[in-house]
Amino acid sequence: MSIKIGIAGYGNLGRGVECAIKQNPDMELAAVFTRRNPESVQILTEGVPVCRIEDAGEWKDRIDVMILCGGSATDLPQQTPALAKMFNVIDSFDTHAKIPEHYANVDAAAKEGGKVSIISVGWDPGMFSLNRLYANAILPDGKDYTFWGKGVSQGHSDAVRRVEGVKDARQYTIPVESSLEAVREGKNPELTTREKHTRECFVVLEEGADAAKVEEEIKNMPNYFSDYDTTVHFISEEELQKNHSGIPHGGFVLRSGKTGWNGENSHLIEYSLKLDSNPEFTSSVLAAYARAAYRLSCEGVSGCRTVFDIAPAYLSEKSGEELRKMML
Amino acid sequence: MSIKIGIAGYGNLGRGVECAIKQNPDMELAAVFTRRNPESVQILTEGVPVCRIEDAGEWKDRIDVMILCGGSATDLPQQTPALAKMFNVIDSFDTHAKIPEHYANVDAAAKEGGKVSIISVGWDPGMFSLNRLYANAILPDGKDYTFWGKGVSQGHSDAVRRVEGVKDARQYTIPVESSLEAVREGKNPELTTREKHTRECFVVLEEGADAAKVEEEIKNMPNYFSDYDTTVHFISEEELQKNHSGIPHGGFVLRSGKTGWNGENSHLIEYSLKLDSNPEFTSSVLAAYARAAYRLSCEGVSGCRTVFDIAPAYLSEKSGEELRKMML
Repeated sequence: MSIKIGIAGYGNLGRGVECAIKQNPDMELAAVFTRRNPESVQILTEGVPVCRIEDAGEWKDRIDVMILCGGSATDLPQQTPALAKMFNVIDSFDTHAKIPEHYANVDAAAKEGGKVSIISVGWDPGMFSLNRLYANAILPDGKDYTFWGKGVSQGHSDAVRRVEGVKDARQYTIPVESSLEAVREGKNPELTTREKHTRECFVVLEEGADAAKVEEEIKNMPNYFSDYDTTVHFISEEELQKNHSGIPHGGFVLRSGKTGWNGENSHLIEYSLKLDSNPEFTSSVLAAYARAAYRLSCEGVSGCRTVFDIAPAYLSEKSGEELRKMML
Repeated sequence: MSIKIGIAGYGNLGRGVECAIKQNPDMELAAVFTRRNPESVQILTEGVPVCRIEDAGEWKDRIDVMILCGGSATDLPQQTPALAKMFNVIDSFDTHAKIPEHYANVDAAAKEGGKVSIISVGWDPGMFSLNRLYANAILPDGKDYTFWGKGVSQGHSDAVRRVEGVKDARQYTIPVESSLEAVREGKNPELTTREKHTRECFVVLEEGADAAKVEEEIKNMPNYFSDYDTTVHFISEEELQKNHSGIPHGGFVLRSGKTGWNGENSHLIEYSLKLDSNPEFTSSVLAAYARAAYRLSCEGVSGCRTVFDIAPAYLSEKSGEELRKMML
């Protein structure tokens, strides 16, 4: 008996979840839900229906876990609590500052419905958060560092696209290698925003746009670029398509800490990701946590959880016995 | 109210646990238990008694968690089940092949006593195992790699010391950098034992020993060295003391895997440790899991667990609310 998964929202993330389900033999895709006209949505899996998100309620007894693939800005704050009453749900809510509020809303809804919700699943928040927690618990006397990249920042790419004269753009966030090395060497540097990351923009100009003015405006944009060393490259639309159409990302979580009676020994814990496709990796994490939600629900658990609350064994298809034998 | 910890066995690991307790404000050391004459054991913490291990039962109601710091070969297979009946216990049992048997014995004892046991805690088994599990659950279509070092292997150092003509020795296990790089580049290499690690020995000879013969014997030692490229350096006793008295270790757990409808995207997950002191880092992991055992026990749980079964939040001194706000 496989776990029946519903996908709510069919963009890059939803498609990624569909691919992840194909890789997990204990899961099957039951239905995809969309706000668009279902007939206009072409999915990859044969024989699986695409339905209107408004009709999700009709699937209450035919879906074990609904994976929400909307955006954190406006979709998830509404959708997760609404669907959490009817389904076990997983989301990738990533507005760090609003997690406590989102958690409270989803928890109330999930308890009302007697269902399990797991929020903020992915890699940051998600796997990076887990690594921060483990490393802090092990090395209480230490210092945390998170570097992102090299990867495409959707938010920063959008910001560049809003500059007058810009037709299209892609922005890469890049960790400063020398700072990363200083952390690895146990130097515990205090790093400014500028010392942690650089930003690189590939920009396609509108015809007749003033390149110098565009570059100036990008580099001085508050919040997004003014605190960073930013490089701007002007390229053709063809070049952007050819060399910058992927959505790679990744990053590093490090903790350097001391042990010993007088803190005489140093240690470095480092976790890193190098991802060809940010949404597909996030989707793969979502799928693993869907398995956990299903199992917890079978045990009678209800309410909201995060990656911090889920014992790792729940993520694996293998039994406890197999895990102890093969992976411990 | 702090968690009262007992330490059973006061070698490098026991001393490391003592140091870790000092770093965790919610823990206090209640007593140290030893097989030696207690009067001969000098500990670091003032005012804490050193007792005979045979008298541990008298402390049944005064210790929340007993951390077992004996060896996996002969101590823990006996001690953990024996003490698991009376105490919540943590051990670092690391004989991978015998984990299922040890688990069964400890589980029976812990259930009999209504206590929580967590076995095989440390970094391998332990943090490395966790990273193997998480990475496998996220990327089902992939390949695992574990490299150890650079670090001192106690077992290999002992093997060299048993060679005739050797007065003292230290053996380092070193990952082959080019193989590590091939994995990082997503080449999914099939690696032989020789291609994964090299071994470097620093040897102090007995007076009049035949260096060439010793070197030959080390390099051809089955199981320990014959499958590796081994370098042997002959040094003075002073040099060994001065440059090789530390117990550093570490290593790398990597998983490279594919996602996408046709496996078109590659990803790399890497976890690494660089440790000045192998026993002190292991001890720090033991202390964090002691907190988890205490909390689970307060919740009424009994039986044996491994790192796979413990939700990460149990390791942290912080509340769920604080964790979601600060670390997610």
